[in-house]
Amino acid sequence: MQYYPPSLVRLIKGLAKLPGIGEKTATRLALHILRSSHEDAKRLSESILEVKGKVRFCSKCFGLADTDPCRLCVNPNRDTTIICVIEQPSDLVALEKSGAFKGLYHVLHGALSPMNGIGPNDLKIKELMARVSNGKIEELVIATNTNVEGEATASYLAQILKAHPVRVTRIASGVPMGSDLKYLDEVTINRAMERRQDL
Amino acid sequence: MQYYPPSLVRLIKGLAKLPGIGEKTATRLALHILRSSHEDAKRLSESILEVKGKVRFCSKCFGLADTDPCRLCVNPNRDTTIICVIEQPSDLVALEKSGAFKGLYHVLHGALSPMNGIGPNDLKIKELMARVSNGKIEELVIATNTNVEGEATASYLAQILKAHPVRVTRIASGVPMGSDLKYLDEVTINRAMERRQDL
Repeated sequence: MQYYPPSLVRLIKGLAKLPGIGEKTATRLALHILRSSHEDAKRLSESILEVKGKVRFCSKCFGLADTDPCRLCVNPNRDTTIICVIEQPSDLVALEKSGAFKGLYHVLHGALSPMNGIGPNDLKIKELMARVSNGKIEELVIATNTNVEGEATASYLAQILKAHPVRVTRIASGVPMGSDLKYLDEVTINRAMERRQDL
Repeated sequence: MQYYPPSLVRLIKGLAKLPGIGEKTATRLALHILRSSHEDAKRLSESILEVKGKVRFCSKCFGLADTDPCRLCVNPNRDTTIICVIEQPSDLVALEKSGAFKGLYHVLHGALSPMNGIGPNDLKIKELMARVSNGKIEELVIATNTNVEGEATASYLAQILKAHPVRVTRIASGVPMGSDLKYLDEVTINRAMERRQDL
């Protein structure tokens, strides 16, 4: 790498800090940027600064936003009586893509994980409780992941919300659509059997 | 993607233009940049502009450089009587890393490829001839790749350089060091057998 001009080496080092990008890939990307048009490079450079300058967390739902409250929170077409609780902003995008949910969101920014020292105070749980206490919320759909941390977080939320007159639900778990039972893990099959429904 | 804030979407689109980076990876990188420190993001943004502004091709060897002539061309410790002819600036880096060559370089910026419409005029061959004609060059080592295009380029160069009183050599081809014959392709084994040497 030290055989490239110093400014190119600086770019390679910067790119190599990104996740999943090693020195070889960073070199390939840097050489591509070098060959790309001045306009493309300028646009990429500016959009990095723009993202850092503009994108914040919405003060209501803690999703990513460049306005506050975010466009979802102020959208008059959304059902404001139901909140879907998720772990990460990327989960919000997955749910929106599916079109399955028309209410508001609340991003916890993580899940309970005592092993990693993540307790309730490290998540946006206080803020969720405040939204619930403000009334008007009729249902909370807990859509944390279905791994150990996500399940623990769901149980914890269900427990502390017992005192509130709000309906707390959990997204269904079971066999994913379009899948082949023989390739499925045992935990999922057990869960699907346990929660079988009348046809 | 349209569920992310517009400025984040712009960054994702910019990153997705890089080679080998699809929309999913671009999203992951953009979210990482969003989470990284302001300083890191600023440095990355600036180094993109810096590379585009500073890095040029050396007017002598056509390698990448932010000075002209490049540091290699003006280095008094290099042997100025021998030039190694290569296809790309990245080949220069590979050769420098190996420490095998102490002369000057000449980057052709490609190889002859009639199928892709790349002829002698699309490469830095005229410039190479000018360097050879200026005298003082005693040997040209053709180190183009050993694929069809690279071999064709080497033959072409050997042919047009016949008229010049310069020694033209080609890097050796054969079995790579540390390799296992049973996994090697037939063309390489044939070549290695053809060019066997006395021990």
